[in-house]
Amino acid sequence: MTSTPVARPDEVRRYNRTSLLRRLHLAGPSTRASLATELGLNRSTIKTLVDGLARAGVVAERVPRPGRQAGRPSLLVLPQPEAAVVLAVDVRVEHVALAMVGLGGQILGRDSWNLRGRTREPEEVVTRLVESTEPLATDLGVRPVACGVSVPGVVRRADGHVHEAPNLRWSGVALGRRLTSALAVPVVVGNDAELAALAEYLRGTATGTPDVVFVSADIGVGGGVIAQGASLRGGAGYVGEIGHMAVRPNGRPCYCGTTGCWETEVGEAAFCRALGLPENSPRGAVVAELHALASEPAVARRRLAELADWLTLGLVNIVNLFGGELVVLGDLFTELPAPVLDDIDRAVRERSLVSRALGGVRVRTSALGPDVKLLGAAEAAFETVLDMV
Amino acid sequence: MTSTPVARPDEVRRYNRTSLLRRLHLAGPSTRASLATELGLNRSTIKTLVDGLARAGVVAERVPRPGRQAGRPSLLVLPQPEAAVVLAVDVRVEHVALAMVGLGGQILGRDSWNLRGRTREPEEVVTRLVESTEPLATDLGVRPVACGVSVPGVVRRADGHVHEAPNLRWSGVALGRRLTSALAVPVVVGNDAELAALAEYLRGTATGTPDVVFVSADIGVGGGVIAQGASLRGGAGYVGEIGHMAVRPNGRPCYCGTTGCWETEVGEAAFCRALGLPENSPRGAVVAELHALASEPAVARRRLAELADWLTLGLVNIVNLFGGELVVLGDLFTELPAPVLDDIDRAVRERSLVSRALGGVRVRTSALGPDVKLLGAAEAAFETVLDMV
Repeated sequence: MTSTPVARPDEVRRYNRTSLLRRLHLAGPSTRASLATELGLNRSTIKTLVDGLARAGVVAERVPRPGRQAGRPSLLVLPQPEAAVVLAVDVRVEHVALAMVGLGGQILGRDSWNLRGRTREPEEVVTRLVESTEPLATDLGVRPVACGVSVPGVVRRADGHVHEAPNLRWSGVALGRRLTSALAVPVVVGNDAELAALAEYLRGTATGTPDVVFVSADIGVGGGVIAQGASLRGGAGYVGEIGHMAVRPNGRPCYCGTTGCWETEVGEAAFCRALGLPENSPRGAVVAELHALASEPAVARRRLAELADWLTLGLVNIVNLFGGELVVLGDLFTELPAPVLDDIDRAVRERSLVSRALGGVRVRTSALGPDVKLLGAAEAAFETVLDMV
Repeated sequence: MTSTPVARPDEVRRYNRTSLLRRLHLAGPSTRASLATELGLNRSTIKTLVDGLARAGVVAERVPRPGRQAGRPSLLVLPQPEAAVVLAVDVRVEHVALAMVGLGGQILGRDSWNLRGRTREPEEVVTRLVESTEPLATDLGVRPVACGVSVPGVVRRADGHVHEAPNLRWSGVALGRRLTSALAVPVVVGNDAELAALAEYLRGTATGTPDVVFVSADIGVGGGVIAQGASLRGGAGYVGEIGHMAVRPNGRPCYCGTTGCWETEVGEAAFCRALGLPENSPRGAVVAELHALASEPAVARRRLAELADWLTLGLVNIVNLFGGELVVLGDLFTELPAPVLDDIDRAVRERSLVSRALGGVRVRTSALGPDVKLLGAAEAAFETVLDMV
């Protein structure tokens, strides 16, 4: 309800320092004057903080590029990417991507490899992660101070325990504990859609919108919710499994043990069915077929009608249940032809009771591209260390 | 992410005072020693706070009833109910209940009246509320310091604007503003299920469970979510409308403009259909029929099978989407025969992916009875004033 007050001046100083760093990390270079306004601090406090951070090499100041403004330009305060680097990991069904992400959110180095057969086993993934991090850290001359990992499964946030990641065939994996001991830094493991929602909120389509739901279709369908500016989690830190919303009584069987789950109607297999492709077609074939439909709105609407109906129904439910103002669609959903997306946007706005109260929910596509989960994993890691930089 | 630190000693003192009052308000009489332990404060701080509150008449100390313990008994610190009284209002479709609730949560006086025809108009309800409060306040010799109102509809929490309360035929009612000016105290207006969830979390079946969903069937079906110990709200403070989850494609038409909403399958009308009663039968007849089934488990299961299936499907969705550890059923759901409730509890636990991760979600019935929304409204009002008592 109410947070514990902090009375010690050094804690106030540290809090202000962290706020300033977070602002620079997320919004980029700023003048001292705009930092003072945005953080509600006076100029002399900002000066003390910036001078201290500059001495520590965490920020630098530089003259901005010449513009049209008259007079002496204000110096810009810039975060120094190498001052705090985190390791971001995106474990997907088919491959693992990892990146070193610097203060300010820039990707400073990256690697990836495919997962097939035995390489998908948790032990193998952990070993390969540690091996792949070494050369990246050596190249940069900087070791990561924390690690964030995105996993497509049911993850307990508190300790990074992966209860179930069905498409990886993982079950009961103590991933957080194993990686913490292998990397010797704080590790945060999160559900992939939860971390993507965080990235959209901090750096993407949802920046500045405190109530947003991210929904994406990969092989499965996942969702993450930001409610009043914070990730929504449930019991034991587990997030919800939006893809397992039952939408079709007596529908197709789902691996989760029930039938008619939303992901059976709007996941990759449903795209294949709608497009007349064999299920399990390569992603490239699915995307090519979707792009081919872009120039034929009538055909696109007809062929994707059923999938669009199920997508709309699930999104109406999501808006009615969470009361979000914005839904961001990711992964395969972003490849849907524009007229189909427009129809869905309009239908969700009209059919949701809560949307009407809010004056119209919007359905938009992610603009962060395939790095969205990697960026979310990086932000989850930064959240744990920004106050220690 | 991080809360603003509070540095001034008087604010720390006020914070501690509010924490102590909240603890006494919710958990009842305690010894100074247990208060010190629970609040993490030292004995001398507790002494100063309790002495100050006792001088102000907000708490009293008394010798506990003789028990089996040897030695001199510790004094109990008790909240004084009249030291802070709030007005709690539960606007229902058929009637309005109001109560004066004292510090500690005790109902000190109450009134209610039926709503029919013109008396259901917002102006009439506000006028009657103000008129009914006067004699209650006079009897007690205490004026309320705040007011909480439960409304069965879509409510914007920030200013108590009722966007839509279909069963009351209210639309666009500035209830918060009107009542604030009529009563001249802070007024909080909330959705009825949201406030019931708060009551269950603070004083009911869900005490101590930080992730809980309350779902109740009255004429409509509503739900409220407590996530990590706080009410879940969406954009502009609106809460979700769980009853309008679409569960049955091409199902029955719902007043919200779509078809197949959950409440068309598990609301009061669905109970009537299942029991072979005319829709719109009086509540008493529905409850009597349900009670008659209590002694015939096989018959109960058969007649309520379809309703139980839809209830289970919606609850599985709720657990999968919100990740709650506990679902509390209210109103008409509490009247379901025990074997049917047991089946639903078991089915939700088995069929929800998230439930399996959490080691088994529980479905329980409310123990707070018909006052649950009234008690929730009282707690919402106390939240706004406990720091000013």
